[in-house]
Amino acid sequence: MSDNGSDRPAGDDHLPVAVDAMGGDEAPEIVVRGAIEAAESHGTPVLLVGDPDRLGDTGGLPIEPATEVVEMGADPAKAVRRLKDSSIVRAAEAVRDGRASALLSAGNTGAAMAASLLRMGRIKGVARPAIAVPFPVLGSTPTTLLDCGANADCQPEWLVQFARLGTAYARHRFDLERPRVAILTIGEEAGKGNSLVKEACELLEEPEWAEACGASYVGNIEGGDLMAGLADVVVCDGFTGNVTLKSLEGGFDIFKASTRRALADRAELAGLDGVIGEALDPLYDGVFNASRTGAAMLLGTRGVTLIAHGSSSQSTIANAIQTADEMARAGILDAIRQAVGAPAP
Amino acid sequence: MSDNGSDRPAGDDHLPVAVDAMGGDEAPEIVVRGAIEAAESHGTPVLLVGDPDRLGDTGGLPIEPATEVVEMGADPAKAVRRLKDSSIVRAAEAVRDGRASALLSAGNTGAAMAASLLRMGRIKGVARPAIAVPFPVLGSTPTTLLDCGANADCQPEWLVQFARLGTAYARHRFDLERPRVAILTIGEEAGKGNSLVKEACELLEEPEWAEACGASYVGNIEGGDLMAGLADVVVCDGFTGNVTLKSLEGGFDIFKASTRRALADRAELAGLDGVIGEALDPLYDGVFNASRTGAAMLLGTRGVTLIAHGSSSQSTIANAIQTADEMARAGILDAIRQAVGAPAP
Repeated sequence: MSDNGSDRPAGDDHLPVAVDAMGGDEAPEIVVRGAIEAAESHGTPVLLVGDPDRLGDTGGLPIEPATEVVEMGADPAKAVRRLKDSSIVRAAEAVRDGRASALLSAGNTGAAMAASLLRMGRIKGVARPAIAVPFPVLGSTPTTLLDCGANADCQPEWLVQFARLGTAYARHRFDLERPRVAILTIGEEAGKGNSLVKEACELLEEPEWAEACGASYVGNIEGGDLMAGLADVVVCDGFTGNVTLKSLEGGFDIFKASTRRALADRAELAGLDGVIGEALDPLYDGVFNASRTGAAMLLGTRGVTLIAHGSSSQSTIANAIQTADEMARAGILDAIRQAVGAPAP
Repeated sequence: MSDNGSDRPAGDDHLPVAVDAMGGDEAPEIVVRGAIEAAESHGTPVLLVGDPDRLGDTGGLPIEPATEVVEMGADPAKAVRRLKDSSIVRAAEAVRDGRASALLSAGNTGAAMAASLLRMGRIKGVARPAIAVPFPVLGSTPTTLLDCGANADCQPEWLVQFARLGTAYARHRFDLERPRVAILTIGEEAGKGNSLVKEACELLEEPEWAEACGASYVGNIEGGDLMAGLADVVVCDGFTGNVTLKSLEGGFDIFKASTRRALADRAELAGLDGVIGEALDPLYDGVFNASRTGAAMLLGTRGVTLIAHGSSSQSTIANAIQTADEMARAGILDAIRQAVGAPAP
């Protein structure tokens, strides 16, 4: 550990965010720079976890040494079990041991989940942790979809618990007093969907769970309305959530590139590249940018775990670190404990 | 029936396409105009099915009278059973009775499916008909996703049959000799997915089905690559397919509107609306337009059934009629019979 002021003992009121410095397409460079930006611009304390010989100039940020790296394509569970001195495992341990308030990784998503689960453990009462991802809604608060990939096969009861987890998340992340919760399905009318959704709908329509966690259940939502701002939290199984998330990310990438190309191809617009860029960049690099819509959060483990896109830029990393810090300080873990501790439907 | 030349007896080499004139957001006006365009511009014979008092000027196209209409929000199966003189039911009967080669509807999707199933029946050997939808691939042949909503819950064997149906479709629709078939899932490596996908993968990896129907199985595809042109046919359950289709349609609508607005908001681009429109329209109203990517086709019933978007424009209707005619004349039904009659995996 470095000897600067961030090396605080557990129990301090402002613990650092443990950042997996070795995870990400351009790690460690971009991650270290993002961490420095978070510390300098937002005053967020950061603990960089990684190989000290490879991190370069950390701008005085403390380093937790870890000599191994879980590669992007590695089998998550195996890698986490085998690579005990990897940056993602050491970062999760720093949270477990009370030396960090939260974990951020832009590396292997499965490894971040596995490290969080195996090192921090589940919150009592949580059947299955879920990945929550905010989807952009133009001119309004994002809509959070979960599960986006932690559980490929789900039980109906888990979807009700995802609704509880998502409610706690939306309240703390977006300051919503009574989040509107919907279920993702393939028709507007009640009773439309596959067998999982039909069973989950019956459970979600019971008023107890929503009353207990302060949600407002608004029923079905179709894929076409996912970004229309009709709900704050949308639940689905992790297979559907992941396919939907990836399809939209991939679709938007193609859409953005083809729009820019179509405009660039018009001779009359030559020389206006700069103006067109200024008009589109906030939308394309901001709102409709997978790495900018906010890091995904694993809900249900005994620690704040944020997972950023592998292609995250420096400022995206900095924002994600700030979000991790805010979520930890806002007491998201206690809120989740309370949300799942309430009477089951 | 009118007395013009399209009033042919069954067995004629060029039967008309039965068009549900009452189905669609702006039916019957837009549908009738689309039918006239198909007849006049492409020379496609059309049989308009609907209420003669409401169709207006049909430009001499023959009319099959039907006094009832299945509304967009109606329960499909109930409506088809009860409204025996509805335009969609009569149109399906025209195909069944050999007076039309194909059916096109831009109305209630479920009702078109139900009418096709109940009136035409299933092709022998088809476990479950499926909805095939072509997704745009920039600069290349579209990728066909199925099932896009006919079967919310699926058996692994059905996904193999969807692969066979999709292969026959892609070959006839897009002139592909050996379509590349993939399965939609949430990881690149074999064995990634939910339990349905894992079981279906094992069946799909057996070489017999692909050899028998002339497909080339290429393995997993993730949501992010759905429009990247890596496969010609992608199979999934109807729940996942419908959520994916609708999410992309809804996402693109938001994307298009916000892009146009961002450009219009820049003072420096004032007066260039026309040029920007000319640059973007082919992409936005063409490629990334849900109602233009080509009508969905129900594969597996004993008739060619095409389902167009409710918001289809006149020219979209005309194109869909032409596609229906081409598919019928190309012998898609025989190809499907052959594809499913081949040895099961």
